[in-house]
Amino acid sequence: MTLAGASTAARRHLLDVDGWSRTELEDMLDLAVEMRTRRAAGDLPDPLRGVTVGLAFFENSTRTRVSFELAARELGATVTDLSVAGSSVAKGESLIDTVRTLERTGIRVIVLRHAASGAPYLAARALEYAAIVNAGDGTHAHPTQALLDALTLRDTLGSLDGARIVIVGDAVHSRVAHSNLHALTTLGASVVLTGPPAWVRAFDGWPGVTVEPELEAALHGADAVMALRVQLERAAGSGVPSLAEFIAGWGLTAERLDGACPTAWLMHPGPANEGVEISAELSTAERSLIGRQVENGVPIRMAVLSRVVELGH
Amino acid sequence: MTLAGASTAARRHLLDVDGWSRTELEDMLDLAVEMRTRRAAGDLPDPLRGVTVGLAFFENSTRTRVSFELAARELGATVTDLSVAGSSVAKGESLIDTVRTLERTGIRVIVLRHAASGAPYLAARALEYAAIVNAGDGTHAHPTQALLDALTLRDTLGSLDGARIVIVGDAVHSRVAHSNLHALTTLGASVVLTGPPAWVRAFDGWPGVTVEPELEAALHGADAVMALRVQLERAAGSGVPSLAEFIAGWGLTAERLDGACPTAWLMHPGPANEGVEISAELSTAERSLIGRQVENGVPIRMAVLSRVVELGH
Amino acid sequence: MTLAGASTAARRHLLDVDGWSRTELEDMLDLAVEMRTRRAAGDLPDPLRGVTVGLAFFENSTRTRVSFELAARELGATVTDLSVAGSSVAKGESLIDTVRTLERTGIRVIVLRHAASGAPYLAARALEYAAIVNAGDGTHAHPTQALLDALTLRDTLGSLDGARIVIVGDAVHSRVAHSNLHALTTLGASVVLTGPPAWVRAFDGWPGVTVEPELEAALHGADAVMALRVQLERAAGSGVPSLAEFIAGWGLTAERLDGACPTAWLMHPGPANEGVEISAELSTAERSLIGRQVENGVPIRMAVLSRVVELGH
Repeated sequence: MTLAGASTAARRHLLDVDGWSRTELEDMLDLAVEMRTRRAAGDLPDPLRGVTVGLAFFENSTRTRVSFELAARELGATVTDLSVAGSSVAKGESLIDTVRTLERTGIRVIVLRHAASGAPYLAARALEYAAIVNAGDGTHAHPTQALLDALTLRDTLGSLDGARIVIVGDAVHSRVAHSNLHALTTLGASVVLTGPPAWVRAFDGWPGVTVEPELEAALHGADAVMALRVQLERAAGSGVPSLAEFIAGWGLTAERLDGACPTAWLMHPGPANEGVEISAELSTAERSLIGRQVENGVPIRMAVLSRVVELGH
Repeated sequence: MTLAGASTAARRHLLDVDGWSRTELEDMLDLAVEMRTRRAAGDLPDPLRGVTVGLAFFENSTRTRVSFELAARELGATVTDLSVAGSSVAKGESLIDTVRTLERTGIRVIVLRHAASGAPYLAARALEYAAIVNAGDGTHAHPTQALLDALTLRDTLGSLDGARIVIVGDAVHSRVAHSNLHALTTLGASVVLTGPPAWVRAFDGWPGVTVEPELEAALHGADAVMALRVQLERAAGSGVPSLAEFIAGWGLTAERLDGACPTAWLMHPGPANEGVEISAELSTAERSLIGRQVENGVPIRMAVLSRVVELGH
Repeated sequence: MTLAGASTAARRHLLDVDGWSRTELEDMLDLAVEMRTRRAAGDLPDPLRGVTVGLAFFENSTRTRVSFELAARELGATVTDLSVAGSSVAKGESLIDTVRTLERTGIRVIVLRHAASGAPYLAARALEYAAIVNAGDGTHAHPTQALLDALTLRDTLGSLDGARIVIVGDAVHSRVAHSNLHALTTLGASVVLTGPPAWVRAFDGWPGVTVEPELEAALHGADAVMALRVQLERAAGSGVPSLAEFIAGWGLTAERLDGACPTAWLMHPGPANEGVEISAELSTAERSLIGRQVENGVPIRMAVLSRVVELGH
């Protein structure tokens, strides 16, 4: 199997889940389940023995960076951290020069998070044999987040076939929403987007996607509700009158979910702005899958890294 | 044995040495001596094999962070660094969310330094099975520093029973002083606090503690003198007329020690402001134990980490 | 063999290549070739097993830091990163106190990059058994860069005997140029310096070195041309009328090299300011050795670290 959704030359990279077939997605989730089981049993394989993985996070992160780091190390990799602070990026070195340099020192997998949409594609094109794993690029894609969300939903619902998944918030600027749209619809779910019209209307007409700005109508019959993180610094002036109006119209609370979809599960990619997109009590409610999303982060990244290394040989 | 001074539910954590019995303290020092001996012989055990330790230092540190890191690694742990720079703390994520996220990725021990007094207690309460090790919280406690100070004194004096230990400086704002007061008095020493009255008078009446603002009287008969770091940025306006007056009244010099307590050992938790709380010549004098304090940092943290992991199973 | 160019007491350190004999240089390059061959074959020795290496980079770096880190780890070392951000240097701790503290925690090799010329000498003098490896100090020296440059040239030209190596740019402020002057001339090459007179005239009369401010005359007959990084923030006011005049007079382009020295190889220590000291097309031209310079970074640092550890026992 190859990492699909990529031209032949770029197959060893993981840039996006856009274009993956249902079989390819299910195979990756199955591999993650195997990793999870073997990890719990203390019986992990070491497919990354002798492989050096560089973590190049040019944006802040805790859960994504740590879960990639643990996934890589527990599979036997040598991991080196390439934070902005200690790097020549401060000297104005270009991303392309940086990744080429890393490749030449012997690094075989570069896990890249970057504020610029498309940065992983630029980096991948510059490399001869090292692989890029996209850990989130600008507003474009966050493929491992979509995979761990899909795994969490499959674990909980049994299958995504026919499931109704509601995504609430600024979908148009969300890499999490973009990658989830592809993965969830390919796995058989229907996705409903709700939020201020300026944040959701661009997706009107996407296959498998319904846009329903009004929250209560969107929630009706939901199997799971995924709240997106409101980028507080970005909220004003993007077509949303004010944060207060967002909270009034689309902030998730126990009352709203109990009324519209009492059995729906709650998801959030984290970190949440409690009191904005979700209430504080919701994040720890029984219906919350947030903890399980985090727990699935390491096995999903183990599956992705082992597949990337396998294809790079 | 359990890590005492904690409720049953919190036993696996190391939050403070407050409340430990003399036996519990001595046992930990004995374990550190064993670690030190085996380290020197290249014969360390690996009780942390398969355990992931996260270093969460939300305040600057060299000696404490490095000694925890080496202690954990040399006992077989996988160590991941969670510096502020690369973390979601910059996104406003709460400490509780951060430690819960770390626990869910599989981290089993979180070594936490935090500017807020009490932060490790908050974090410990939020966790289900991961353990918190307090590496210094605000002005409250620094238990591993107190343990390594006690070990250094026991190494040098043979026993702390009946020893007179003088602590000089801003005791009321010092986590080092707080934890040392508990550990040293429990181990049988009497502690004399000296410094500007506003910095020491709060401890008047503590069991085993004498407050003596006048330096020369305090030093008389001392077995060891521990200088505290003056927080230069904090000095003005906290009841001390000026830095010059502190130096004139309580700055330690060879002359002052030679006059009042010629055989007393000198200690400092580091990093020292030379020319303020101690003179430059004192820090490298023969009577200085500062180097031995640093050397004992790794074995003490080895003892603490191995005990925390043992209790967590 | 000892690390030459150092007093007996300082032999275990690597502070500079100044003073090394030709045999000592060739031996180090031979050891690097052996490391490179064994690395490619997956057959590396582990002379750093049980040794802790601290990376103390007090200036930004990607290629140097990463190549030291990989070199140390792949030879079996435990590596700890001592970045400025998380260290007590922010508390005003002196370099000497920092390296002494590191030594006392058990660190045996400190790889030091520092903005102050001479910092590694100060640090080395303060240590009892730990070794300092200079990874670049101010405008003074960058010995491992000179070694990897020499290796790259020896790989390409067969021998440096009688070779004509042109160095272009701000030699007087360049640690790369300083260390290269020593290494290249000792290995039998003649070195020609070219650039604005204020940047090169200080070397007039050095053994084996010719100063030729006019670029075309300097390039004539060159076997290799090494461009130095223009420190953009430093360019104005240092005797150079303007950046535009530097580019007009000494910026390297394919046309200029094709005209004056069509078969000369191109080198750059990186990261390059493309469009300033070299054109963008040159850095990826067939004549460019820049990628091979980076590739030789890890084996050279493996050779240096294994020799330092061998001498420290």
